[in-house]
Amino acid sequence: METGGDRYPSKLLEEAVDSIGSLPGIGSRSAMRLALHLLRQPKENVHRLTTALNSLVDEVRYCRECMMISDGELCGVCSDHTRDRNTICVVESLRDVLSIEATGQYRGVFHVLGGIISPIHGIAPSDLSIPLLTSRVERLVGETAPDTIEIIMALSGDVEGETTSFYLYRQLSRFGVRFSTLARGLGFGDDLEYADSLTLGRSIINRQVFKP
Amino acid sequence: METGGDRYPSKLLEEAVDSIGSLPGIGSRSAMRLALHLLRQPKENVHRLTTALNSLVDEVRYCRECMMISDGELCGVCSDHTRDRNTICVVESLRDVLSIEATGQYRGVFHVLGGIISPIHGIAPSDLSIPLLTSRVERLVGETAPDTIEIIMALSGDVEGETTSFYLYRQLSRFGVRFSTLARGLGFGDDLEYADSLTLGRSIINRQVFKP
Repeated sequence: METGGDRYPSKLLEEAVDSIGSLPGIGSRSAMRLALHLLRQPKENVHRLTTALNSLVDEVRYCRECMMISDGELCGVCSDHTRDRNTICVVESLRDVLSIEATGQYRGVFHVLGGIISPIHGIAPSDLSIPLLTSRVERLVGETAPDTIEIIMALSGDVEGETTSFYLYRQLSRFGVRFSTLARGLGFGDDLEYADSLTLGRSIINRQVFKP
Repeated sequence: METGGDRYPSKLLEEAVDSIGSLPGIGSRSAMRLALHLLRQPKENVHRLTTALNSLVDEVRYCRECMMISDGELCGVCSDHTRDRNTICVVESLRDVLSIEATGQYRGVFHVLGGIISPIHGIAPSDLSIPLLTSRVERLVGETAPDTIEIIMALSGDVEGETTSFYLYRQLSRFGVRFSTLARGLGFGDDLEYADSLTLGRSIINRQVFKP
């Protein structure tokens, strides 16, 4: 082809495909498919998409208490007076908040780190909302007895998650608050035969009292 | 959660996730992942993406000859004087053009239908660029001997592709032009053992002269 570079017949198409293909999990074939899909749509649909994306990144706000994405100064959880403010569940991202909220089992509040400590990916504690968590716990300790405050470290079970949990513990233990992590073991309904041996081994070590 | 509807803590996020999730092949979980990815990007990256998408749908043009996406009045293929204008390869979409161009084996021109006849999906011949193809062939027949004009129907091998090919044949055969379709058979390097029996059967019926 002569116009618009080597790969595509149009520069506009090429720029769109390159932009879409730069998103994670979308290869160049999918990007092309999506671009052609957008061209078959009424223009208004595409404008609605682009306006929504621009508004998201231009106008997004974060809860000043827990750093969750929020439309106001405080998120829905932090402004809900029925939630237990002395129980703070520390998570990596909003997705974890949504998963935990979906269980309907948690009545405390959250703290969204915005990532996880990872020297390999160049993510240091200062890149996360850890300083904000520290000052939040410090403020809370000034208001209430430290041993009524619980920090639940709901981070992933891999090395980076463990590192972050350990770092948080070192930062916050001087306040005398309590710490916990999510229970790990076999899933409900899991078959022993198919469980990985690490999980099965820990399930035996951390066996619980049988409550019939 | 109290603000921003039931599912998400922010209306902005909800609108972005809904818009992304309306794209084909992207479920609501992937849409959420992409939205959070965009929030971690510098704003300029997101603006570059949205500008590229808006420009694509607002400024895109189609070659007046073959309906391929093009930045000018004529696409790169149609404006290339070394290509054989009497051989027209009819394809469903730009993706097919790119696949055929990538082989480097074709020196004719194209005609992009923009879809395929499909009563189930409500796509009639008039929704495609078939009238344009008819007038194109008519014009060509006025300029050159009909039997030097070849229409290659490079459509898919399913019922809808066959239907479309048959419809094109009925529309264009009155001009006395020649018709062909893509050769079908075992792929190069295919193993007989794993070929589907329909393909293998046709490969035997349409066997070719052995040229050592």
